[in-house]
Amino acid sequence: MGPILLNHMGNEEDEYIKEQVQVNNPNLDTMEEDILYHFSLSTKTHNLPEMFGDIKFVCVGGSANRMKAFAQFIHQELKLPGNPGDVKDICEGTDRYCMYKVGPVLSISHGMGVPSISIMLHELIKLLHHAQCRDVVLFRLGTSGGVGLAPGTVVITEKAVDYSFRPQFEQVVLGKVITRNTELDEGVANELLQCSSELQTFPTVIGNTMCTHDFYEGQGRLDGALCSFSQEEKLEYLRKAYEAGVRNIEMESTVFAAMCRVCGLKGIIFLTKQTLYDGKTF
Amino acid sequence: MGPILLNHMGNEEDEYIKEQVQVNNPNLDTMEEDILYHFSLSTKTHNLPEMFGDIKFVCVGGSANRMKAFAQFIHQELKLPGNPGDVKDICEGTDRYCMYKVGPVLSISHGMGVPSISIMLHELIKLLHHAQCRDVVLFRLGTSGGVGLAPGTVVITEKAVDYSFRPQFEQVVLGKVITRNTELDEGVANELLQCSSELQTFPTVIGNTMCTHDFYEGQGRLDGALCSFSQEEKLEYLRKAYEAGVRNIEMESTVFAAMCRVCGLKGIIFLTKQTLYDGKTF
Repeated sequence: MGPILLNHMGNEEDEYIKEQVQVNNPNLDTMEEDILYHFSLSTKTHNLPEMFGDIKFVCVGGSANRMKAFAQFIHQELKLPGNPGDVKDICEGTDRYCMYKVGPVLSISHGMGVPSISIMLHELIKLLHHAQCRDVVLFRLGTSGGVGLAPGTVVITEKAVDYSFRPQFEQVVLGKVITRNTELDEGVANELLQCSSELQTFPTVIGNTMCTHDFYEGQGRLDGALCSFSQEEKLEYLRKAYEAGVRNIEMESTVFAAMCRVCGLKGIIFLTKQTLYDGKTF
Repeated sequence: MGPILLNHMGNEEDEYIKEQVQVNNPNLDTMEEDILYHFSLSTKTHNLPEMFGDIKFVCVGGSANRMKAFAQFIHQELKLPGNPGDVKDICEGTDRYCMYKVGPVLSISHGMGVPSISIMLHELIKLLHHAQCRDVVLFRLGTSGGVGLAPGTVVITEKAVDYSFRPQFEQVVLGKVITRNTELDEGVANELLQCSSELQTFPTVIGNTMCTHDFYEGQGRLDGALCSFSQEEKLEYLRKAYEAGVRNIEMESTVFAAMCRVCGLKGIIFLTKQTLYDGKTF
């Protein structure tokens, strides 16, 4: 277990956030009930502090099956009592997301794309707030297309960038576009890199992660239902991305980084299994 | 069964598309194999014309459970042989989407938000193309927040509009923003309205549907983890939306309409269960 995990499991010299998870909405304190619609949970029907008060790590990823498998893996790693196969979906009342709790770790699926993860993050942050959680670190785990990297390389995100390689997320609020910063915590990224170099299991780099809003035209794939560009134009775009520090492409990082920053949460994006645009395409 | 269904099940005077479903990508014809990653299907491992060649109607919606229930409902309505409870998920090799075939009807889930439905639509349009399907109509079914309507009203979408009420979808292609038209077929919308008025089961209107990229700040909800606006500002925005012809708000319509138009498919959006911003808020 790496130093991040140890630090968050009781080390008094923990240098990370000691604060309760904060929402950024004054209305929540005056509401009689807060329904977390897409989790099928509510402050009236569930005792959220009792259910979730000890959470220190939240790991999120796109696929429901993978996040269940991850919860079972963590169950084994933490040597918790009981059978890992018996982990239970806390959100079984809905099919929007799935959620598993194993000790201080929450494993949640978020579907594909910024809107899907954004709904989950709003309700997750409210859940952690209502449960009075402290010192929580959020990890986004998943797959991505690597840019100029050998397949299998792990990328720890330094900045989540948009299609123009800018570290920002454009959020529409009541018809007006506002821009949020998407830089992630440098210290935690470096610590994670250190863990990886000690483990020596897979090559790991720190780099920028580009977030697109689709899988085909936005990421330069030549095999979508629509494709209006050539192989050369695709490679030219990816070359520019590489020069701007982009090392991988996925579909959720900007809003993840932006919401972590706005709510004062440590967020880490840790993406594996680069399957696209490996060294051969350059 | 309404005239749309009858027309598409053998009427020679059918006025709708008689053409095979078209992709807009010259690369696909020269590829040895086309893998529909997120359906866990491929042109090499599956006989797509045999599996899907008779499809005339594709119904898509966000929730996997609902699209299974819808497939079972259609199974009963069409009086197909066998037990509706036995409908089988064709995409069981993946948890990204689920897909059920009942006679000439395909029922598919698409998750939440534009990126999620966009991946599904790329692969669906390729599937219909490879299967040599003809005269296909796509329906998006689902829930939405009504604007100035009584709860329970059904909205048939005339135009899918963005946060500024413009009938357009901005697609990023290799870092450049292109704009696509999102007007839906007026004839089919009117025919559907006619069906509804004959059935007299629920109030139905034709109106514009606003597509947002999140559920909370973009739709003016006061109960997200982040909220920087007042109740008055929210109502002012919704009033402007209403004046621009918006009758409901959801998260997938613009890309659905845009991709149907680009690929020459008849697309219909038919949204039920308005739960927000009913008449009382105006």
